[in-house]
Amino acid sequence: MNNIITISRQFSSGGREIGKRLADSLLYAYYDAEIIKKVAEESGFCESYIEKYSEANITRGYNYTFGQTFSTLSPSDQVQIAQAKVIRELSTKGDCVIVGRCADYILKDSNNFKVFIYSSDMEQRIKRCYDKVPADKNKTEKEMQKMIKSIDKTRSKNYNYYTGQDWEDMTNYNLCIDTSVVSIKQAVATILACCNNK
Amino acid sequence: MNNIITISRQFSSGGREIGKRLADSLLYAYYDAEIIKKVAEESGFCESYIEKYSEANITRGYNYTFGQTFSTLSPSDQVQIAQAKVIRELSTKGDCVIVGRCADYILKDSNNFKVFIYSSDMEQRIKRCYDKVPADKNKTEKEMQKMIKSIDKTRSKNYNYYTGQDWEDMTNYNLCIDTSVVSIKQAVATILACCNNK
Repeated sequence: MNNIITISRQFSSGGREIGKRLADSLLYAYYDAEIIKKVAEESGFCESYIEKYSEANITRGYNYTFGQTFSTLSPSDQVQIAQAKVIRELSTKGDCVIVGRCADYILKDSNNFKVFIYSSDMEQRIKRCYDKVPADKNKTEKEMQKMIKSIDKTRSKNYNYYTGQDWEDMTNYNLCIDTSVVSIKQAVATILACCNNK
Repeated sequence: MNNIITISRQFSSGGREIGKRLADSLLYAYYDAEIIKKVAEESGFCESYIEKYSEANITRGYNYTFGQTFSTLSPSDQVQIAQAKVIRELSTKGDCVIVGRCADYILKDSNNFKVFIYSSDMEQRIKRCYDKVPADKNKTEKEMQKMIKSIDKTRSKNYNYYTGQDWEDMTNYNLCIDTSVVSIKQAVATILACCNNK
Protein backbone atom coordinates (compact mmCIF):
# COMPACT_ATOMS: atom_id res chain seq x y z
CA MET A 1 0.00 0.00 0.00
CA ASN A 2 1.29 3.47 -0.86
CA ASN A 3 2.28 5.94 1.84
CA ILE A 4 -0.18 8.81 1.75
CA ILE A 5 -0.10 11.92 3.90
CA THR A 6 -3.14 14.21 3.74
CA ILE A 7 -2.86 17.77 5.01
CA SER A 8 -5.98 19.68 6.02
CA ARG A 9 -5.34 23.26 7.04
CA GLN A 10 -6.77 26.55 8.19
CA PHE A 11 -6.33 29.22 5.53
CA SER A 12 -2.86 30.84 5.56
CA SER A 13 -1.63 28.67 8.42
CA GLY A 14 1.34 27.37 6.37
CA GLY A 15 -0.20 23.98 5.53
CA ARG A 16 0.55 24.17 1.82
CA GLU A 17 4.22 25.06 2.39
CA ILE A 18 4.54 22.29 4.96
CA GLY A 19 3.02 19.80 2.50
CA LYS A 20 5.38 20.87 -0.30
CA ARG A 21 8.50 20.71 1.88
CA LEU A 22 7.39 17.36 3.29
CA ALA A 23 6.88 15.88 -0.18
CA ASP A 24 10.30 17.22 -1.29
CA SER A 25 11.93 15.77 1.80
CA LEU A 26 10.33 12.33 1.43
CA LEU A 27 10.54 12.33 -2.39
CA TYR A 28 6.76 11.85 -2.53
CA ALA A 29 4.49 13.29 -5.21
CA TYR A 30 2.75 16.51 -4.13
CA TYR A 31 -0.85 17.20 -5.12
CA ASP A 32 -2.60 20.49 -4.56
CA ALA A 33 -3.45 22.74 -7.54
CA GLU A 34 -2.45 19.72 -9.72
CA ILE A 35 -5.75 18.15 -8.64
CA ILE A 36 -7.72 20.98 -10.22
CA LYS A 37 -5.87 20.53 -13.54
CA LYS A 38 -6.51 16.80 -13.48
CA VAL A 39 -10.20 17.23 -12.61
CA ALA A 40 -10.48 19.66 -15.54
CA GLU A 41 -8.91 17.14 -17.92
CA GLU A 42 -11.12 14.29 -16.79
CA SER A 43 -14.44 16.07 -16.23
CA GLY A 44 -14.43 18.73 -18.95
CA PHE A 45 -15.15 21.46 -16.36
CA CYS A 46 -12.88 24.49 -16.82
CA GLU A 47 -10.30 25.14 -14.08
CA SER A 48 -11.87 28.35 -12.80
CA TYR A 49 -15.23 26.57 -12.44
CA ILE A 50 -13.59 23.78 -10.44
CA GLU A 51 -11.71 26.26 -8.29
CA LYS A 52 -14.95 28.11 -7.61
CA TYR A 53 -16.81 25.03 -6.49
CA SER A 54 -14.05 22.84 -5.02
CA GLU A 55 -13.44 24.36 -1.58
CA ALA A 56 -14.75 27.88 -1.71
CA ASN A 57 -18.46 27.34 -2.15
CA ILE A 58 -21.22 24.86 -1.64
CA THR A 59 -24.24 24.99 -3.88
CA ARG A 60 -26.74 22.56 -2.52
CA GLY A 61 -28.71 20.20 -4.71
CA TYR A 62 -29.75 17.76 -2.06
CA ASN A 63 -27.83 16.21 0.77
CA TYR A 64 -24.99 14.56 -1.07
CA THR A 65 -22.46 12.16 0.40
CA PHE A 66 -19.63 10.60 -1.60
CA GLY A 67 -20.84 7.62 -3.61
CA GLN A 68 -24.04 8.85 -5.28
CA THR A 69 -24.82 9.37 -8.98
CA PHE A 70 -24.41 12.59 -10.99
CA SER A 71 -28.07 13.33 -11.80
CA THR A 72 -29.69 16.40 -10.18
CA LEU A 73 -26.43 17.28 -8.47
CA SER A 74 -25.43 20.89 -7.83
CA PRO A 75 -22.22 22.30 -9.43
CA SER A 76 -20.23 21.87 -6.20
CA ASP A 77 -21.50 18.31 -5.77
CA GLN A 78 -20.42 17.48 -9.34
CA VAL A 79 -16.99 19.03 -8.79
CA GLN A 80 -16.64 17.13 -5.48
CA ILE A 81 -17.41 13.81 -7.15
CA ALA A 82 -14.94 14.45 -9.98
CA GLN A 83 -12.35 15.61 -7.46
CA ALA A 84 -12.85 12.59 -5.20
CA LYS A 85 -12.36 10.30 -8.21
CA VAL A 86 -9.10 12.05 -9.16
CA ILE A 87 -7.84 11.92 -5.54
CA ARG A 88 -8.53 8.18 -5.36
CA GLU A 89 -6.73 7.64 -8.69
CA LEU A 90 -3.70 9.70 -7.64
CA SER A 91 -3.47 7.80 -4.35
CA THR A 92 -2.96 4.54 -6.25
CA LYS A 93 -0.06 5.89 -8.32
CA GLY A 94 2.57 6.02 -5.56
CA ASP A 95 3.55 7.67 -2.26
CA CYS A 96 2.15 11.20 -2.06
CA VAL A 97 1.19 14.26 -0.03
CA ILE A 98 -2.29 15.66 -0.77
CA VAL A 99 -3.38 19.07 0.49
CA GLY A 100 -7.02 19.88 1.33
CA ARG A 101 -10.11 18.82 -0.63
CA CYS A 102 -11.44 16.41 2.05
CA ALA A 103 -8.69 13.98 0.95
CA ASP A 104 -8.33 12.73 4.55
CA TYR A 105 -11.94 11.52 4.41
CA ILE A 106 -11.97 10.40 0.77
CA LEU A 107 -8.92 8.17 1.44
CA LYS A 108 -9.96 7.03 4.92
CA ASP A 109 -9.77 3.38 3.87
CA SER A 110 -6.28 3.81 2.40
CA ASN A 111 -4.52 4.02 5.74
CA ASN A 112 -3.45 7.60 5.06
CA PHE A 113 -1.67 9.65 7.72
CA LYS A 114 -3.94 12.61 8.49
CA VAL A 115 -2.47 15.96 9.50
CA PHE A 116 -4.28 19.19 10.42
CA ILE A 117 -2.43 22.53 10.44
CA TYR A 118 -3.86 25.51 12.34
CA SER A 119 -2.73 28.79 13.82
CA SER A 120 -4.20 31.12 16.41
CA ASP A 121 -1.78 33.90 15.42
CA MET A 122 -3.91 36.07 13.13
CA GLU A 123 -1.13 38.63 12.66
CA GLN A 124 1.20 35.90 11.35
CA ARG A 125 -1.54 34.58 9.03
CA ILE A 126 -2.22 38.04 7.61
CA LYS A 127 1.52 38.58 7.05
CA ARG A 128 1.70 35.26 5.20
CA CYS A 129 -1.14 36.41 2.90
CA TYR A 130 0.55 39.75 2.21
CA ASP A 131 3.85 37.96 1.42
CA LYS A 132 2.27 35.45 -0.95
CA VAL A 133 -0.29 37.55 -2.78
CA PRO A 134 1.07 41.05 -3.53
CA ALA A 135 -2.42 42.20 -4.61
CA ASP A 136 -3.64 41.63 -1.05
CA LYS A 137 -1.51 44.58 0.07
CA ASN A 138 -4.37 46.82 -1.05
CA LYS A 139 -6.53 45.35 1.70
CA THR A 140 -6.43 46.53 5.31
CA GLU A 141 -5.54 44.09 8.12
CA LYS A 142 -9.18 44.15 9.20
CA GLU A 143 -10.32 43.19 5.70
CA MET A 144 -7.68 40.44 5.59
CA GLN A 145 -8.82 39.05 8.95
CA LYS A 146 -12.41 39.01 7.74
CA MET A 147 -11.37 37.21 4.55
CA ILE A 148 -9.30 34.59 6.44
CA LYS A 149 -12.14 33.86 8.86
CA SER A 150 -14.63 33.66 6.02
CA ILE A 151 -12.49 31.16 4.05
CA ASP A 152 -12.04 29.01 7.17
CA LYS A 153 -15.77 29.08 7.78
CA THR A 154 -16.50 27.96 4.22
CA ARG A 155 -13.90 25.19 4.38
CA SER A 156 -15.43 24.02 7.64
CA LYS A 157 -18.97 24.04 6.20
CA ASN A 158 -17.76 22.30 3.04
CA TYR A 159 -15.96 19.58 5.02
CA ASN A 160 -18.93 19.03 7.30
CA TYR A 161 -21.32 18.91 4.32
CA TYR A 162 -19.36 16.27 2.41
CA THR A 163 -18.02 14.15 5.27
CA GLY A 164 -20.54 14.55 8.09
CA GLN A 165 -17.57 15.27 10.38
CA ASP A 166 -16.38 18.41 12.15
CA TRP A 167 -13.44 19.99 10.34
CA GLU A 168 -11.60 21.04 13.49
CA ASP A 169 -12.25 17.87 15.52
CA MET A 170 -8.80 16.51 16.41
CA THR A 171 -10.05 12.93 16.48
CA ASN A 172 -10.46 13.03 12.67
CA TYR A 173 -6.69 13.44 12.37
CA ASN A 174 -3.52 11.71 13.58
CA LEU A 175 -1.48 14.83 14.18
CA CYS A 176 -2.57 18.45 14.68
CA ILE A 177 0.07 21.19 14.63
CA ASP A 178 -0.28 24.81 15.73
CA THR A 179 1.97 26.94 13.51
CA SER A 180 1.55 29.98 15.74
CA VAL A 181 4.16 28.27 17.96
CA VAL A 182 5.66 25.51 15.77
CA SER A 183 7.67 26.87 12.82
CA ILE A 184 7.23 25.53 9.28
CA LYS A 185 10.62 23.80 9.54
CA GLN A 186 9.71 22.24 12.88
CA ALA A 187 6.30 21.16 11.58
CA VAL A 188 7.96 19.29 8.70
CA ALA A 189 10.42 17.64 11.13
CA THR A 190 7.49 16.80 13.40
CA ILE A 191 5.56 15.01 10.67
CA LEU A 192 8.74 13.23 9.55
CA ALA A 193 9.26 12.04 13.14
CA CYS A 194 5.87 10.32 12.89
CA CYS A 195 6.89 8.58 9.67
CA ASN A 196 10.22 7.35 11.08
CA ASN A 197 11.50 5.82 14.35
CA LYS A 198 8.87 3.06 14.47
CA MET B 1 11.96 31.73 31.27
CA ASN B 2 11.90 27.99 31.95
CA ASN B 3 10.96 25.51 29.24
CA ILE B 4 7.69 23.89 30.27
CA ILE B 5 5.84 21.15 28.40
CA THR B 6 2.34 20.30 29.62
CA ILE B 7 0.75 17.04 28.55
CA SER B 8 -3.01 16.62 28.65
CA ARG B 9 -4.22 13.16 27.73
CA GLN B 10 -7.14 10.82 27.28
CA PHE B 11 -7.05 8.03 29.86
CA SER B 12 -4.73 5.16 28.90
CA SER B 13 -3.63 6.83 25.67
CA GLY B 14 0.07 6.66 26.64
CA GLY B 15 0.36 10.32 27.68
CA ARG B 16 2.05 9.60 30.98
CA GLU B 17 4.68 7.33 29.41
CA ILE B 18 5.32 9.90 26.68
CA GLY B 19 5.74 12.62 29.32
CA LYS B 20 8.19 10.52 31.35
CA ARG B 21 10.29 9.54 28.33
CA LEU B 22 10.29 13.12 27.10
CA ALA B 23 11.48 14.44 30.47
CA ASP B 24 14.23 11.78 30.58
CA SER B 25 15.29 12.63 27.05
CA LEU B 26 15.42 16.39 27.66
CA LEU B 27 16.75 16.06 31.22
CA TYR B 28 13.73 18.03 32.45
CA ALA B 29 11.99 17.46 35.79
CA TYR B 30 8.85 15.30 35.48
CA TYR B 31 5.75 16.09 37.55
CA ASP B 32 2.74 13.84 37.75
CA ALA B 33 2.00 11.94 40.98
CA GLU B 34 4.72 14.14 42.57
CA ILE B 35 2.21 16.99 42.42
CA ILE B 36 -0.18 15.10 44.70
CA LYS B 37 2.58 14.56 47.29
CA LYS B 38 3.53 18.21 47.17
CA VAL B 39 -0.08 19.38 47.47
CA ALA B 40 -0.44 17.09 50.50
CA GLU B 41 2.66 18.59 52.13
CA GLU B 42 1.58 22.16 51.52
CA SER B 43 -2.18 21.92 52.10
CA GLY B 44 -2.44 19.33 54.86
CA PHE B 45 -4.95 17.29 52.79
CA CYS B 46 -4.09 13.57 52.76
CA GLU B 47 -2.92 12.11 49.44
CA SER B 48 -5.97 9.90 48.86
CA TYR B 49 -8.26 12.91 49.42
CA ILE B 50 -6.31 14.93 46.85
CA GLU B 51 -6.33 12.04 44.39
CA LYS B 52 -10.09 11.71 44.83
CA TYR B 53 -10.77 15.38 44.13
CA SER B 54 -7.94 16.32 41.76
CA GLU B 55 -9.05 14.93 38.40
CA ALA B 56 -11.57 12.25 39.13
CA ASN B 57 -14.43 14.20 40.64
CA ILE B 58 -15.97 17.60 40.80
CA THR B 59 -17.97 18.58 43.84
CA ARG B 60 -19.56 21.89 43.11
CA GLY B 61 -19.65 24.71 45.63
CA TYR B 62 -20.32 27.55 43.26
CA ASN B 63 -18.88 28.37 39.89
CA TYR B 64 -15.20 28.59 40.69
CA THR B 65 -12.49 29.84 38.39
CA PHE B 66 -8.81 29.98 39.35
CA GLY B 67 -8.06 33.06 41.40
CA GLN B 68 -10.86 33.17 44.01
CA THR B 69 -10.61 32.79 47.81
CA PHE B 70 -10.96 29.57 49.80
CA SER B 71 -14.19 30.35 51.68
CA THR B 72 -17.30 28.29 50.88
CA LEU B 73 -15.34 26.23 48.35
CA SER B 74 -16.14 22.57 47.69
CA PRO B 75 -13.47 19.88 48.36
CA SER B 76 -12.54 19.66 44.69
CA ASP B 77 -12.32 23.44 44.41
CA GLN B 78 -9.98 23.54 47.43
CA VAL B 79 -7.82 20.78 45.97
CA GLN B 80 -7.74 22.56 42.60
CA ILE B 81 -6.54 25.80 44.20
CA ALA B 82 -3.83 24.03 46.20
CA GLN B 83 -2.82 22.07 43.10
CA ALA B 84 -2.69 25.16 40.89
CA LYS B 85 -0.44 26.87 43.47
CA VAL B 86 1.93 23.88 43.51
CA ILE B 87 1.99 23.72 39.69
CA ARG B 88 2.86 27.42 39.48
CA GLU B 89 5.64 26.96 42.07
CA LEU B 90 7.09 23.91 40.31
CA SER B 91 7.09 25.76 36.98
CA THR B 92 9.42 28.41 38.41
CA LYS B 93 12.00 25.87 39.60
CA GLY B 94 13.37 24.84 36.19
CA ASP B 95 12.58 23.14 32.89
CA CYS B 96 9.87 20.52 33.35
CA VAL B 97 7.18 18.26 31.90
CA ILE B 98 3.84 18.35 33.74
CA VAL B 99 1.12 15.78 33.09
CA GLY B 100 -2.58 16.55 33.44
CA ARG B 101 -4.25 18.65 36.16
CA CYS B 102 -5.20 21.57 33.86
CA ALA B 103 -1.51 22.59 33.91
CA ASP B 104 -1.78 23.80 30.30
CA TYR B 105 -4.36 26.37 31.42
CA ILE B 106 -2.83 27.19 34.82
CA LEU B 107 0.50 28.02 33.13
CA LYS B 108 -0.98 29.69 30.05
CA ASP B 109 0.97 32.89 30.76
CA SER B 110 4.25 30.98 31.14
CA ASN B 111 4.68 30.28 27.43
CA ASN B 112 4.36 26.53 28.01
CA PHE B 113 4.27 24.10 25.08
CA LYS B 114 0.88 22.39 25.22
CA VAL B 115 0.48 18.80 24.04
CA PHE B 116 -2.67 16.66 23.92
CA ILE B 117 -2.43 12.86 23.57
CA TYR B 118 -5.46 10.86 22.39
CA SER B 119 -6.24 7.50 20.86
CA SER B 120 -9.24 6.17 18.97
CA ASP B 121 -7.98 2.57 19.38
CA MET B 122 -10.03 1.32 22.33
CA GLU B 123 -8.53 -2.18 22.12
CA GLN B 124 -5.03 -0.74 22.50
CA ARG B 125 -6.14 1.43 25.45
CA ILE B 126 -7.73 -1.54 27.22
CA LYS B 127 -4.55 -3.59 26.67
CA ARG B 128 -2.48 -0.76 28.16
CA CYS B 129 -4.71 -0.80 31.26
CA TYR B 130 -4.39 -4.57 31.64
CA ASP B 131 -0.59 -4.32 31.28
CA LYS B 132 -0.21 -1.55 33.84
CA VAL B 133 -2.74 -2.54 36.50
CA PRO B 134 -2.77 -6.32 37.03
CA ALA B 135 -5.92 -6.04 39.19
CA ASP B 136 -7.81 -4.77 36.13
CA LYS B 137 -7.52 -8.26 34.61
CA ASN B 138 -10.56 -9.23 36.70
CA LYS B 139 -12.64 -6.82 34.62
CA THR B 140 -14.14 -7.71 31.23
CA GLU B 141 -13.21 -5.69 28.14
CA LYS B 142 -16.70 -4.18 28.20
CA GLU B 143 -16.23 -3.06 31.81
CA MET B 144 -12.81 -1.63 30.94
CA GLN B 145 -14.23 0.30 27.99
CA LYS B 146 -16.95 1.74 30.22
CA MET B 147 -14.36 2.76 32.83
CA ILE B 148 -12.08 4.41 30.23
CA LYS B 149 -14.96 6.39 28.72
CA SER B 150 -16.17 7.40 32.17
CA ILE B 151 -12.72 8.68 33.25
CA ASP B 152 -12.38 10.66 30.00
CA LYS B 153 -15.82 12.15 30.54
CA THR B 154 -14.92 13.25 34.06
CA ARG B 155 -11.59 14.71 32.94
CA SER B 156 -13.42 16.61 30.22
CA LYS B 157 -16.05 17.96 32.66
CA ASN B 158 -13.36 18.84 35.19
CA TYR B 159 -11.29 20.70 32.58
CA ASN B 160 -14.31 22.56 31.27
CA TYR B 161 -15.43 23.47 34.81
CA TYR B 162 -12.08 24.95 35.87
CA THR B 163 -10.93 26.51 32.60
CA GLY B 164 -14.11 27.36 30.69
CA GLN B 165 -12.53 25.63 27.67
CA ASP B 166 -13.32 22.40 25.83
CA TRP B 167 -10.88 19.66 26.79
CA GLU B 168 -10.65 18.15 23.32
CA ASP B 169 -10.53 21.43 21.37
CA MET B 170 -7.26 21.33 19.41
CA THR B 171 -6.91 25.11 19.47
CA ASN B 172 -6.17 24.94 23.23
CA TYR B 173 -3.00 23.01 22.41
CA ASN B 174 0.08 23.38 20.20
CA LEU B 175 0.40 19.73 19.22
CA CYS B 176 -2.18 16.91 19.32
CA ILE B 177 -0.99 13.34 18.75
CA ASP B 178 -3.10 10.25 18.05
CA THR B 179 -1.34 7.25 19.63
CA SER B 180 -3.60 4.80 17.82
CA VAL B 181 -1.32 5.46 14.82
CA VAL B 182 1.74 7.21 16.27
CA SER B 183 3.81 4.96 18.57
CA ILE B 184 5.03 6.12 22.00
CA LYS B 185 8.58 6.34 20.62
CA GLN B 186 7.43 8.34 17.60
CA ALA B 187 5.33 10.63 19.79
CA VAL B 188 8.37 11.48 21.91
CA ALA B 189 10.44 12.13 18.75
CA THR B 190 7.57 14.23 17.41
CA ILE B 191 7.46 16.49 20.47
CA LEU B 192 11.26 16.74 20.45
CA ALA B 193 11.12 17.84 16.80
CA CYS B 194 8.98 20.77 17.94
CA CYS B 195 11.54 21.74 20.58
CA ASN B 196 14.49 21.59 18.13
CA ASN B 197 15.23 22.65 14.53
CA LYS B 198 14.12 26.27 15.04
